[in-house]
Amino acid sequence: MLEEEAAYALLDVSASSPLLMLGLPKGSLEESTKNLFAKAGWNITTSSRSYKPAIDDPELDGRFVRAQEVSRYVEHGFFDCGLTGYDWIQENGSDVVEVCDLIYSRASVQKSRWVLCVPESSSVQKPEDLAGKRVATEMVGTVKRYFEAKRIAVDVEFSWGATEVKVPDLVDAIVDITETGSSLRANKLRIVDTLLYTNTKFIANKASWSNPAKRKKIETIAMLLQAALEAGSKVGLKMNVPKANLDEITRVVPSLRNPTISPLSSPDWVALETIIDEKVVREIIPQLKTLGAEGIVEYPLNKVVY
Amino acid sequence: MLEEEAAYALLDVSASSPLLMLGLPKGSLEESTKNLFAKAGWNITTSSRSYKPAIDDPELDGRFVRAQEVSRYVEHGFFDCGLTGYDWIQENGSDVVEVCDLIYSRASVQKSRWVLCVPESSSVQKPEDLAGKRVATEMVGTVKRYFEAKRIAVDVEFSWGATEVKVPDLVDAIVDITETGSSLRANKLRIVDTLLYTNTKFIANKASWSNPAKRKKIETIAMLLQAALEAGSKVGLKMNVPKANLDEITRVVPSLRNPTISPLSSPDWVALETIIDEKVVREIIPQLKTLGAEGIVEYPLNKVVY
Amino acid sequence: MLEEEAAYALLDVSASSPLLMLGLPKGSLEESTKNLFAKAGWNITTSSRSYKPAIDDPELDGRFVRAQEVSRYVEHGFFDCGLTGYDWIQENGSDVVEVCDLIYSRASVQKSRWVLCVPESSSVQKPEDLAGKRVATEMVGTVKRYFEAKRIAVDVEFSWGATEVKVPDLVDAIVDITETGSSLRANKLRIVDTLLYTNTKFIANKASWSNPAKRKKIETIAMLLQAALEAGSKVGLKMNVPKANLDEITRVVPSLRNPTISPLSSPDWVALETIIDEKVVREIIPQLKTLGAEGIVEYPLNKVVY
Amino acid sequence: MLEEEAAYALLDVSASSPLLMLGLPKGSLEESTKNLFAKAGWNITTSSRSYKPAIDDPELDGRFVRAQEVSRYVEHGFFDCGLTGYDWIQENGSDVVEVCDLIYSRASVQKSRWVLCVPESSSVQKPEDLAGKRVATEMVGTVKRYFEAKRIAVDVEFSWGATEVKVPDLVDAIVDITETGSSLRANKLRIVDTLLYTNTKFIANKASWSNPAKRKKIETIAMLLQAALEAGSKVGLKMNVPKANLDEITRVVPSLRNPTISPLSSPDWVALETIIDEKVVREIIPQLKTLGAEGIVEYPLNKVVY
Amino acid sequence: MLEEEAAYALLDVSASSPLLMLGLPKGSLEESTKNLFAKAGWNITTSSRSYKPAIDDPELDGRFVRAQEVSRYVEHGFFDCGLTGYDWIQENGSDVVEVCDLIYSRASVQKSRWVLCVPESSSVQKPEDLAGKRVATEMVGTVKRYFEAKRIAVDVEFSWGATEVKVPDLVDAIVDITETGSSLRANKLRIVDTLLYTNTKFIANKASWSNPAKRKKIETIAMLLQAALEAGSKVGLKMNVPKANLDEITRVVPSLRNPTISPLSSPDWVALETIIDEKVVREIIPQLKTLGAEGIVEYPLNKVVY
Amino acid sequence: MLEEEAAYALLDVSASSPLLMLGLPKGSLEESTKNLFAKAGWNITTSSRSYKPAIDDPELDGRFVRAQEVSRYVEHGFFDCGLTGYDWIQENGSDVVEVCDLIYSRASVQKSRWVLCVPESSSVQKPEDLAGKRVATEMVGTVKRYFEAKRIAVDVEFSWGATEVKVPDLVDAIVDITETGSSLRANKLRIVDTLLYTNTKFIANKASWSNPAKRKKIETIAMLLQAALEAGSKVGLKMNVPKANLDEITRVVPSLRNPTISPLSSPDWVALETIIDEKVVREIIPQLKTLGAEGIVEYPLNKVVY
Repeated sequence: MLEEEAAYALLDVSASSPLLMLGLPKGSLEESTKNLFAKAGWNITTSSRSYKPAIDDPELDGRFVRAQEVSRYVEHGFFDCGLTGYDWIQENGSDVVEVCDLIYSRASVQKSRWVLCVPESSSVQKPEDLAGKRVATEMVGTVKRYFEAKRIAVDVEFSWGATEVKVPDLVDAIVDITETGSSLRANKLRIVDTLLYTNTKFIANKASWSNPAKRKKIETIAMLLQAALEAGSKVGLKMNVPKANLDEITRVVPSLRNPTISPLSSPDWVALETIIDEKVVREIIPQLKTLGAEGIVEYPLNKVVY
Repeated sequence: MLEEEAAYALLDVSASSPLLMLGLPKGSLEESTKNLFAKAGWNITTSSRSYKPAIDDPELDGRFVRAQEVSRYVEHGFFDCGLTGYDWIQENGSDVVEVCDLIYSRASVQKSRWVLCVPESSSVQKPEDLAGKRVATEMVGTVKRYFEAKRIAVDVEFSWGATEVKVPDLVDAIVDITETGSSLRANKLRIVDTLLYTNTKFIANKASWSNPAKRKKIETIAMLLQAALEAGSKVGLKMNVPKANLDEITRVVPSLRNPTISPLSSPDWVALETIIDEKVVREIIPQLKTLGAEGIVEYPLNKVVY
Repeated sequence: MLEEEAAYALLDVSASSPLLMLGLPKGSLEESTKNLFAKAGWNITTSSRSYKPAIDDPELDGRFVRAQEVSRYVEHGFFDCGLTGYDWIQENGSDVVEVCDLIYSRASVQKSRWVLCVPESSSVQKPEDLAGKRVATEMVGTVKRYFEAKRIAVDVEFSWGATEVKVPDLVDAIVDITETGSSLRANKLRIVDTLLYTNTKFIANKASWSNPAKRKKIETIAMLLQAALEAGSKVGLKMNVPKANLDEITRVVPSLRNPTISPLSSPDWVALETIIDEKVVREIIPQLKTLGAEGIVEYPLNKVVY
Repeated sequence: MLEEEAAYALLDVSASSPLLMLGLPKGSLEESTKNLFAKAGWNITTSSRSYKPAIDDPELDGRFVRAQEVSRYVEHGFFDCGLTGYDWIQENGSDVVEVCDLIYSRASVQKSRWVLCVPESSSVQKPEDLAGKRVATEMVGTVKRYFEAKRIAVDVEFSWGATEVKVPDLVDAIVDITETGSSLRANKLRIVDTLLYTNTKFIANKASWSNPAKRKKIETIAMLLQAALEAGSKVGLKMNVPKANLDEITRVVPSLRNPTISPLSSPDWVALETIIDEKVVREIIPQLKTLGAEGIVEYPLNKVVY
Repeated sequence: MLEEEAAYALLDVSASSPLLMLGLPKGSLEESTKNLFAKAGWNITTSSRSYKPAIDDPELDGRFVRAQEVSRYVEHGFFDCGLTGYDWIQENGSDVVEVCDLIYSRASVQKSRWVLCVPESSSVQKPEDLAGKRVATEMVGTVKRYFEAKRIAVDVEFSWGATEVKVPDLVDAIVDITETGSSLRANKLRIVDTLLYTNTKFIANKASWSNPAKRKKIETIAMLLQAALEAGSKVGLKMNVPKANLDEITRVVPSLRNPTISPLSSPDWVALETIIDEKVVREIIPQLKTLGAEGIVEYPLNKVVY
Repeated sequence: MLEEEAAYALLDVSASSPLLMLGLPKGSLEESTKNLFAKAGWNITTSSRSYKPAIDDPELDGRFVRAQEVSRYVEHGFFDCGLTGYDWIQENGSDVVEVCDLIYSRASVQKSRWVLCVPESSSVQKPEDLAGKRVATEMVGTVKRYFEAKRIAVDVEFSWGATEVKVPDLVDAIVDITETGSSLRANKLRIVDTLLYTNTKFIANKASWSNPAKRKKIETIAMLLQAALEAGSKVGLKMNVPKANLDEITRVVPSLRNPTISPLSSPDWVALETIIDEKVVREIIPQLKTLGAEGIVEYPLNKVVY
């Protein structure tokens, strides 16, 4: 009997009256959301029925719902706060507080965007060419508003899935989400226009945000989620450097921002320690070696708060 | 041929004459036991036949047997030491040395316990109400002794598994293990009494414990297993703090126990580093920020020995 | 559509003109190669068709081919550099630059070797006893050259797999790879001779090595791969020690190589920090405790460059 | 290369110009649809991209789309015919020909139905009690029409999934599909009203149905799909019976409909063979034994056409 | 919601008051038991909690318990009848009716048996040599009675699993179940004595057996389970044979027991059809061809009742 | 212990001295080979080490080796007979008896063939255009002989796998196996020439074939393997037809070859039964209905011998 209980163990602790109800995105974002909260300091565990998780904080309760629905129920007030995409806040037209962005800081990762696409071989070159045609999408409201604003009469239909294979057989164009465009290319699609850029947001209900106790808790969660995200692309780096080269090193390697410099027992050397973007390490270690650094060590981080 | 050999590679090193034979729990605890030893510094690898593992220490050999049987074979002397639960030491009545507890220090995790349960709707309110009835359990000896001590005549039968579904159809009550009681609630069971609290123990054979060489090795293993367990719920935390606020910080945040404070090149700031319970980090980071700390970084640990 | 794109996202960045083409080993070494590069600082992602990976460095492109073929295509010049085993460089007789070894520094891991084996019960005692018989192997060229050098007439046939089960039914002897010999023992085989020791090498095309820009990039990759490998068997260790015992500690525990010693606020104590082989930690922590060290903490590393 | 090709092999045969384009339901019905067609005589194979299957009939091509969308694209004419549920034909308001039902004839299987549900403990007893409240469902159109017909003002919102867990937290009532009501009971829901009964239909585009060649092919497919479905709940039964008891047997066991009776070499016995509902076999075999039948054999069937 | 319901659908039908409660073996026999009942005519479906199955017969209900416990609860009367092994009826000393054996008729399959084993190299040659030693087994009662009957003092201990690896390290001998002895040989064990032969039995509670309605249902189930088992090793065979050779064929091929011979339109030929052991088909088809049979066809069977 | 034994059970029966040693193809053909033998009447069971299977026939023993190697060891005499492809018999130049083809009779399945391919965009149009270039293949011998016969100087290199992705990056052309050409098209390859058609063969050692006892057994196996293959694409079909239409039916539906026509109790009807290619059933059932056939039933077959 013991094993099945793990997921529920801490739920019981919080049986009293939690301060905040959290809206969490179910499905493809579920695992990464749980991992992000774990790094931030909260264990969210779900049993096979993933709707109602256990959270190891008596002040928190939560529910997993579809990402598309989180903002709706934050606005209605069932959730005090929640994670969802900017796209679905817009599609639902939800009146909520956008507390902060939750984006990975890696430079190379581009923002996702919703794009209007046609087959590469299509004669359609601009939105106007779609007048009188059919467009499939999961964001019917946004797409209808887009064409109405342009005064183009288009038949927009809801797509239940696999939107990208629907052109040209089933519809004339689609509006779908893409990050780099490579999946579009794989389906031989061409982008005609971009309707919306999106990323994950931490949002709050307006009344909850006005309540000082709730707002303080929401801000704490936001700070720690960002600290965990930040740590995901950062590493700790420490090394011993000859005092003589210290200036040159910090000049030549500007990404060594605000290093902690501590004395060592040997007076000619100092210990230099800093937090640095993981992506630049592969470039600066050769430089540091050249400048006389020794015992260079990189170690992983859980959280970073500047 | 190469790939299959990995598990065996180090076994051969220890082909000579290991100092200690280790009793390890097979089954649901097998993976976590191997992970704990790995963090403590020993790689225990098993092939598909998991009885005889390979350990990368020429002084150690071991066998995986059922947790219920470890104490029996430690007492008999085939094992010098081993890991098992306090419950099965009691059930077997094994005469062994209890070297140390191996428990996770997380406050919220409760001890497991063996409880006497009946259906929620049963008229049974106290052990005496079970006189003349049938009770199923995996710990027949302990349960029989419990009822004999209370002079209640009960038919105790061995349960081969799935004990929690047996009431009320097959028996009138069960004695089963539980951590938080939630699985009991899911099966609509009510706790009538608690027979035994239990947790994992590191135990030793009495003769082995009297042998100085073996005892020293046993104590080393115990120390490192505990260091690894301790590290599981701890993290490292470092930050720069204004010298002016140092006293207030250490006063306001008492969990920052015995921090290591090092000078920095800037005379108004010091570097503060400490080991802290992972669970409190989410509470004190906001406080530290308020008190002027900067560059707060949390990093993971492998072992902690105070 | 979004999810499938992850693997391709960064590939597009490098669509311009990468500096180096990398030869990567497919199959059993694929996962570990990707993990090693990730620790070194490059994310190599593959979709279900694993031939053409995405690498998050605009200066790098790569392909996954069978380990047996990497050196062939490095020599031909399609790859500028690559990872493969010394054995296949030899078997292919490839004329390439061996940039560095990529071996795990753990003392207990032995080098792999190709051995000539017969059934335990065979009358064959030395290579000469195989005159006129049949030998199966995956390294036909190497084995033929071996017997020719000894002027022994043997029928060497290519083995398509499962070489170790072929004696004595199908052939009289085999030449196969082994690490510790335990798989050989499991198949009741006896080693008659060792033909070749092998380990992973980072190799380069001769023309690429002569090109200064390419060579610099190759050397950077080599340095960081080695830094990541080194970190795999090392850990960080820090502790507070009484100043009075500092000499004795560094004398008694010689593996504490070149520790960083920093002053603490308490004048009688210093902070000692070092990088150490993970395998010796289990032995020196008890010694350190005996010598008065406190707050001993072990933490994981990503990269180590001396 | 050979293995991956299997799925595509027959597609090439049909590269010319198929007569009919078939709309097939993707997702949970995909496997059972492929199995049903296989029993009917057509192998439909899909590769990992399941949109475009291969069908071993040069006159057929097909696409897998979501069951919710099949009727829309049959109506639009991209598909000549297709399989979908009656519910989604209604929700989409599709103007198509309903060629035949495709239902399993097993008596005990009830029709699925869309029901309006509230929590067991809700005060809502009839649809009217939901005035001014919120209802979640995947069939927004049908549910809106239902409430409009009753002149009840209700806020109907689209549910992206897991509808059954939404009451009472997120909405006041749901409209969901159920077969036996047991999942509703598991979620502690109470049925307030039934909106729609549904089962799988084979449908056709109106123009395709008017085309004699296409209609003939559609009818052939319909006949064989029904033959395969019929065979799923039927078995062949044969036995030898004494001529003297033949009348009594066919009288007592009326489910032995129209048996084929053939002479045997022994003039006092005849061979009796029939097709029978699999569910009644367990009841009539004891009766047949009592009436002197011998050598009773049951065998499986692939297709049954009366 | 629909998909999860399948398993429960028919349970609801039987919500009234079933005639019989069936004890079914959980674990390794669970799948084969469900398959056997399916062939016999009853669908037993289990959800993830496999204790309480759904059976598509309003007269039947059932529970899955460990095979070791079935006879205990049949005797106690909770089950009217059940499937279990003869070994566990004996070990539990259960007073039940043995309705019939459920054994596969394939000649080559030997009965399972419980055997007393020692390591091949042990000096133990007969049970008496184990005096004063330890024996591990899952059938403690049976083994104790065995040694008591022989007046040999042995310490018999309960084995929680993996009994076969316990000698010689942990105990001196074991009593374990074996079918062909090959697993014993793989573990280098030698059989000293056989304690018990066993096979699956269909058993009934004595009171249920005395109740005519229950007994009739129990006998029907027994007949159909046996019919399904019988069909597992039988096939149907039919062919056309020249009338002239008919006598020789039935003489030469005696396994063609009681064939059904029917006239054909051609007066010189007859159709011969029979049910035959699947194992002999590979021997007699060549003989039949030699004797002039044509159009020989073998087909599968679901049930056979002679 | 019991469960693991299943695979070995029958092996023991054959411990004496089998008549024939069978060479079986390991890897992708392993499962289908075991299924084919099972349908033919022999159970071949393998444990996790699949080299040495158990076969339930005391006259047979066997080994699983790579398909590429079967003919080599049949020629050498370790195997008396075996299954392999015609391609590998050719590549190995093995001097063996080709007993029979083992091909599925389905009309639509084309023979596999080894083809010389280049990238679609390559300028190579005929084999001669490859003079001086490199070609990768798994069949080095066959390809070398092909180019030598044409007196074209080409560098043929052994491909260790994934041959189809090697052009144009790594080599100029490949020789690979294909069935329908669709995988080639997916890799944008163009066929330049076909070197070899191939299918599965049952082959025998020449000496074994000369031994009358062995040859008789080999011929029996061949007959039953073919009977099982034949049954895979055939079904049984039976129906009742009006005597009046019998001639027309057998004339109109010529695939109803040699039906068995039996009298029925009703003098105006006859029972018609036949074995028919499964692929034509979907075409003739509508015709049969039109011609008055009733109670049309299709049933599966295990073996067919004409």
